[in-house]
Amino acid sequence: MTKMSGEAFRTNGRTAAARGTLAERYASVRQASHALAAPLSAEDCQVQSMPDASPTKWHLAHITWFFETFVLERYAPSFKPFDPAFRVVFNSYYQGVGEQHPRPRRGLLTRPSLAEVKRYRAHVDDAVQALLEARAGDPEIEALVTLGLHHEQQHQELMLTDIKHALSCSPLAQAYAKRWPMARVGPQALRWFGFPGGLREMGHSPEADGAFCFDNETPRHRAWAEGFEIASRLATYGDFLAFMEDDGYARPELWLSMGWDWVRAQARDAPLYWRRDGDRWVTHTLQGTVAIDPHTPVCHLSYFEADAFARWSGARLPTELEWEIVARSLPGGMSGNFADRGAFHPMPQTAPVGDEPLQMFGDVWEWTQSAYLPYPRYRPLPGAVGEYNGKFMCNQFVLRGGSCATPEGHVRASYRNFFPPEAQWQFSGVRLARDA
Amino acid sequence: MTKMSGEAFRTNGRTAAARGTLAERYASVRQASHALAAPLSAEDCQVQSMPDASPTKWHLAHITWFFETFVLERYAPSFKPFDPAFRVVFNSYYQGVGEQHPRPRRGLLTRPSLAEVKRYRAHVDDAVQALLEARAGDPEIEALVTLGLHHEQQHQELMLTDIKHALSCSPLAQAYAKRWPMARVGPQALRWFGFPGGLREMGHSPEADGAFCFDNETPRHRAWAEGFEIASRLATYGDFLAFMEDDGYARPELWLSMGWDWVRAQARDAPLYWRRDGDRWVTHTLQGTVAIDPHTPVCHLSYFEADAFARWSGARLPTELEWEIVARSLPGGMSGNFADRGAFHPMPQTAPVGDEPLQMFGDVWEWTQSAYLPYPRYRPLPGAVGEYNGKFMCNQFVLRGGSCATPEGHVRASYRNFFPPEAQWQFSGVRLARDA
Amino acid sequence: MTKMSGEAFRTNGRTAAARGTLAERYASVRQASHALAAPLSAEDCQVQSMPDASPTKWHLAHITWFFETFVLERYAPSFKPFDPAFRVVFNSYYQGVGEQHPRPRRGLLTRPSLAEVKRYRAHVDDAVQALLEARAGDPEIEALVTLGLHHEQQHQELMLTDIKHALSCSPLAQAYAKRWPMARVGPQALRWFGFPGGLREMGHSPEADGAFCFDNETPRHRAWAEGFEIASRLATYGDFLAFMEDDGYARPELWLSMGWDWVRAQARDAPLYWRRDGDRWVTHTLQGTVAIDPHTPVCHLSYFEADAFARWSGARLPTELEWEIVARSLPGGMSGNFADRGAFHPMPQTAPVGDEPLQMFGDVWEWTQSAYLPYPRYRPLPGAVGEYNGKFMCNQFVLRGGSCATPEGHVRASYRNFFPPEAQWQFSGVRLARDA
Amino acid sequence: MTKMSGEAFRTNGRTAAARGTLAERYASVRQASHALAAPLSAEDCQVQSMPDASPTKWHLAHITWFFETFVLERYAPSFKPFDPAFRVVFNSYYQGVGEQHPRPRRGLLTRPSLAEVKRYRAHVDDAVQALLEARAGDPEIEALVTLGLHHEQQHQELMLTDIKHALSCSPLAQAYAKRWPMARVGPQALRWFGFPGGLREMGHSPEADGAFCFDNETPRHRAWAEGFEIASRLATYGDFLAFMEDDGYARPELWLSMGWDWVRAQARDAPLYWRRDGDRWVTHTLQGTVAIDPHTPVCHLSYFEADAFARWSGARLPTELEWEIVARSLPGGMSGNFADRGAFHPMPQTAPVGDEPLQMFGDVWEWTQSAYLPYPRYRPLPGAVGEYNGKFMCNQFVLRGGSCATPEGHVRASYRNFFPPEAQWQFSGVRLARDA
Repeated sequence: MTKMSGEAFRTNGRTAAARGTLAERYASVRQASHALAAPLSAEDCQVQSMPDASPTKWHLAHITWFFETFVLERYAPSFKPFDPAFRVVFNSYYQGVGEQHPRPRRGLLTRPSLAEVKRYRAHVDDAVQALLEARAGDPEIEALVTLGLHHEQQHQELMLTDIKHALSCSPLAQAYAKRWPMARVGPQALRWFGFPGGLREMGHSPEADGAFCFDNETPRHRAWAEGFEIASRLATYGDFLAFMEDDGYARPELWLSMGWDWVRAQARDAPLYWRRDGDRWVTHTLQGTVAIDPHTPVCHLSYFEADAFARWSGARLPTELEWEIVARSLPGGMSGNFADRGAFHPMPQTAPVGDEPLQMFGDVWEWTQSAYLPYPRYRPLPGAVGEYNGKFMCNQFVLRGGSCATPEGHVRASYRNFFPPEAQWQFSGVRLARDA
Repeated sequence: MTKMSGEAFRTNGRTAAARGTLAERYASVRQASHALAAPLSAEDCQVQSMPDASPTKWHLAHITWFFETFVLERYAPSFKPFDPAFRVVFNSYYQGVGEQHPRPRRGLLTRPSLAEVKRYRAHVDDAVQALLEARAGDPEIEALVTLGLHHEQQHQELMLTDIKHALSCSPLAQAYAKRWPMARVGPQALRWFGFPGGLREMGHSPEADGAFCFDNETPRHRAWAEGFEIASRLATYGDFLAFMEDDGYARPELWLSMGWDWVRAQARDAPLYWRRDGDRWVTHTLQGTVAIDPHTPVCHLSYFEADAFARWSGARLPTELEWEIVARSLPGGMSGNFADRGAFHPMPQTAPVGDEPLQMFGDVWEWTQSAYLPYPRYRPLPGAVGEYNGKFMCNQFVLRGGSCATPEGHVRASYRNFFPPEAQWQFSGVRLARDA
Repeated sequence: MTKMSGEAFRTNGRTAAARGTLAERYASVRQASHALAAPLSAEDCQVQSMPDASPTKWHLAHITWFFETFVLERYAPSFKPFDPAFRVVFNSYYQGVGEQHPRPRRGLLTRPSLAEVKRYRAHVDDAVQALLEARAGDPEIEALVTLGLHHEQQHQELMLTDIKHALSCSPLAQAYAKRWPMARVGPQALRWFGFPGGLREMGHSPEADGAFCFDNETPRHRAWAEGFEIASRLATYGDFLAFMEDDGYARPELWLSMGWDWVRAQARDAPLYWRRDGDRWVTHTLQGTVAIDPHTPVCHLSYFEADAFARWSGARLPTELEWEIVARSLPGGMSGNFADRGAFHPMPQTAPVGDEPLQMFGDVWEWTQSAYLPYPRYRPLPGAVGEYNGKFMCNQFVLRGGSCATPEGHVRASYRNFFPPEAQWQFSGVRLARDA
Repeated sequence: MTKMSGEAFRTNGRTAAARGTLAERYASVRQASHALAAPLSAEDCQVQSMPDASPTKWHLAHITWFFETFVLERYAPSFKPFDPAFRVVFNSYYQGVGEQHPRPRRGLLTRPSLAEVKRYRAHVDDAVQALLEARAGDPEIEALVTLGLHHEQQHQELMLTDIKHALSCSPLAQAYAKRWPMARVGPQALRWFGFPGGLREMGHSPEADGAFCFDNETPRHRAWAEGFEIASRLATYGDFLAFMEDDGYARPELWLSMGWDWVRAQARDAPLYWRRDGDRWVTHTLQGTVAIDPHTPVCHLSYFEADAFARWSGARLPTELEWEIVARSLPGGMSGNFADRGAFHPMPQTAPVGDEPLQMFGDVWEWTQSAYLPYPRYRPLPGAVGEYNGKFMCNQFVLRGGSCATPEGHVRASYRNFFPPEAQWQFSGVRLARDA
């Protein structure tokens, strides 16, 4: 197994992304995908451990397909596809582009090989860079390339969560990368910060959030908030162990009806990746199997688990409006434990809380109680790229803030991630809220 | 098959419900359930055609169990259960009361017989009436009995929709009741009514909506609405046929992703209960099989179908806030084609539209684009009755306005019905909305 | 619940069947079906508790349909169907007759009612009796009517096993009929009887077995048997408890691979219908719930359980050839605990064993290790009735000897029953064999 | 893709296997497995396309595990496992050895890598060869090593059929090896050869069949055969096309009941791997996609298809006794189109038929109508290797004669292969038989 190049991956981050030219940012983000795949063998990159997840090789090809299909095919002079068959096999879900290889069978595509996919990437990179040079400043092309880079960053996160799941399926799986242990720290008391109610604005603001956003963050609009309080930190493994020890998984009154059915059908008594090891709990991580550290933010919770835990805590999940109000109030901006730090796991709060909530960005995606629905007067992008977000607005919940697998600089206060309530394999956790 | 007693069922309606004493209302609502079962044989009342539906006999017993468990058990002196086993077999989903017979196996409870269930009902009715007399004016008891009556009315609607589904499963099924044909009328043009944006209140108002409501309609709270327009009438079979003839079921761009998967997995090309009969479409109804009348409101749409139809129409579904704003603006109140009319099917708009939208109440439940979520500061009722509504707030959408199977007087402007997006067996339809 | 008329059912038995005219036998067998349904309510007769089982009402109609379709339709002058829709809904699996109502949905046919099915039966009975009188002695008609009567007797057994399963699905199910307790007796030691090897004949012999047989019992043919020994009695509950107490359900080496998968997938640790009640095991029977009596033959075993038990016993299941050799050696003929005795449950061996094995007929069907396959030169009956047996010769095992639910006089030494190895809801048990 | 070394694979064949020392045979068979994997990439060797199939890499490791577990662990001095975790992950189904990695998840074992598995093989090979030298002539060890070599040859066939299935799952799959086209030849008329009935012997005969056999071929025993006739050649694609054109897949009277359910549930209208290409049928092969040649033996038939085709032909499948009688009558022995020829596909009959049936060995496994059951007085091998055959004797049918994917020298007249009736991915075909 090749040693992962942390250096290479870090160039993916906010500084480069924010400051460089588009061509530089393109090179940086594309290189980061390679760096993420570097520790993996051809076999590791091949497998698909569940229909929700995709092989690393498929991710590497699909994010390349995005540039080929939405940029090169339209704008590159004398475009020829690298391989016409790729149009189908690396299309994820864009009906407007045509047929797709069935999602649950992505892991059966042994060909092209990983080596061939890398050639495909190099071929497309050359063509995109040539186009960016030839058509420098073309707003349509630059908008699509920028969209493609944010798309690629989303798949960088999925590459990590998907390979984490795949490695968990084998008794022989070792770590993706070994950098543990992280420093152990003591407990940090949970405090509450109050926010008054009132008519607020939510959604993407170019001034506050930067020029780019996904269409689902628009339009910025008014919404009424009641007064509320928010927790100073994320819920920890220790907090969650208290819930478990108080029979949290066995008390139906704590759960949504659908969540209780889920607990019983799956015989759940702990979060995903937990395993008993004698008297203690251990958990599979991208760094290998480690003991549960009580001060680390709990992750890989389904919405059902997050919601039940919040109810048990005498609190609730925040709405996405509340989360955004808090996020916009932070003077410190969006720093946090993102993928660029290379921990690939949430990290304990190390400093005492001051005047503002901590850990709002990075570490774990925070489940909100808000269903993923269109903002008032929302319009998807025109054309097939309009399938990016809007068509998924059903039976999903919004998560906010990014995680330890999110590239730094990728998220913002208005960023809306979304997953169905039973999803566990993302780095998803809880920050409590309550009525003021 | 006994002839259904329309007279008996009509006493269920708004006048009696609103004006009588609680004891009179109790007698009236309870009698209405019997009237609804009257046309059915013991065999008809036995079967369960899908896990979502329940046998008529089970409904008749469960709504009795509700009074026995939540009223008599607590308040009746020297209470003895009619049959201790009923506590489990007729408990729907109240974990706080204990175990439940598995929902998909309700149709296997051949014992008690229908005749025995009727004895059970009579036994409980006597005890409730005695309690109401002995403890007249006791607010706790009266609140629970009132809740039980509204609960029973909800099951009256389910008895109709569930038996409709059951009868559809047999090639030998005849009608539940034959009163057809309804008058045929000509087309009514669709008009749009505009409503300005602004900060509004929504949720239950005792002054406007009457004293009773379910907990999920509370608390009344502020919300911001953008300006919008609403259609003057419900979408009709004719409107929906135009969608179908324009290949609506074959165009993925019209559908939510989950809806498109549903269409393909089920090979759908028409709403539930439709069947081709030579050149024309016919549909199964509670009155038997009838030809599709283009001016009748379309019903039995899933959320997916309602949403796709709205998108194809260049419009959208209303939010529940918008629907409530419109409903509260009607001077004419809540009259409409409810179950008391005995049609048990939506009816065409017969008069030209005037100064306000028509068909807001009755006919079909109107899908909104709002997920079924708690209102800000929502608190479920204490105790096991608190499981009535709150624990279902996940992966469901709100429907508003009642249907041709809803007892008259049961719904109100703040009433929130909810079903998962794939549900079709309720009388669910569409009213279009659009941005102003 | 009406009291079952034991008298009526007993006329079904061997005496009447063997001695009367065909018209008398017809009346007797048909009456016996009614007698079996007599203890059941309309609701009981309606339900279908699993796809393998059918509602009592459906059985009553289907066995009537058999006469209507295969006899009246062809031979009755000016035949008119009682109801043309019945041709489809009461066709079990005869592709040659046309479409069938889906088997798993038989329980949804609420109409015709039980009363209507009884009218159907009376109507067909009148017509068959008139035909038998008008065409007395017609060999084709008499052969088909005789086939129909044996067919009806098979369904009489299924009516009992299917309603037993249905009643087991409800916590409120009481007995089908209460005649228990049967006399308790002491243990009977198991002895072995030896049979030499050699070239034998097997299959139906009119002289030995009577004129009638099913096509799958033909042709009589030669087969080579090795020497073997057979147990003097059936395996008992006590024998099987010893297997269970020796961890029989937890030791893979005792099971076929497919059987072990079945045990684990279903988390089996006891036969069907067993339930722990404190320290003891009880079992659901047609007489209600009773304690396990160690001397009663064990029943409701799958082939997997029968085979594993035999292996644990250091023995094996007999082949069907071996079973038939033993059965033909009995001087005492085919008496046994059949349905006509009204116990509807296997009964302990009450007398010491003498010169021949006991319990070969009645009590429980005995699993053999022989796959259900065609005899050499087997030919199905011509026409749609040829679908009766031959097309099921795949993935089933042969059982021999009849059970406590089989009408007396129905089976014979050459009779081949067959079920898939996972089937448990028949009265199926074990007689051990071993190599000589 | 590396070019496959046909030379290397051919050393696998009968000459070497029959004539060399055990150490030479060991080296030859082991080398042949490598040769078979040579054309495949690490990605190709990783995937598992259905639960019935295994990854090439897993096969390579499992057949090595067999030697390590059953030979080295018991007999090698100072044995240490190559990796203790392999005991579980490469155990197929030997309960006596302990737990197994779940079969459907073999494709998720990305580690060990293919390279590591090759090191594992080399390590075990060294140890086995050392043991064979140190304990030369030890009958126990030699018997187990010989068993392991025959086991490895079985997996060589599965490697080919499993990778064929895997490559069929990707639109981008190219051939496993390209050696096509084979010579086209003209039609060969089908003739019938008669065999008289009588008492025969069947099962393994060391004199006729060689010293080695699997336990399921024993003991040799007597059985009665009726007179029969057998077809001179295998059924061809052309024969099967005639069945298809005569609506064979749409006529229930041709099918077993379970077969008809299978046809409808899977919407089958052609054998596995067939695909319409304009007006013609093409089929996926290990050589790539080729047009259907009418004179080539039809393959990849389920038992259901073989049986329905035989019925349509006015014939039937042979019993395994009949097949063995024919096979033992051949003066020419067991030559045929085995894997060593490198075609990896059945080949047309090229010469006119003479005095005996052709194509009895190689080309395709021939379905018999015999269920896979124990021979009289059959005893499995003692210990965990006794799980090899006996525990699968349920719901499978016997196939005889080997195929184009079977190593030459591996089969014999008494060899019993077995698969469930729905299995299609083996090279399984039909030879017709009929009653004399």
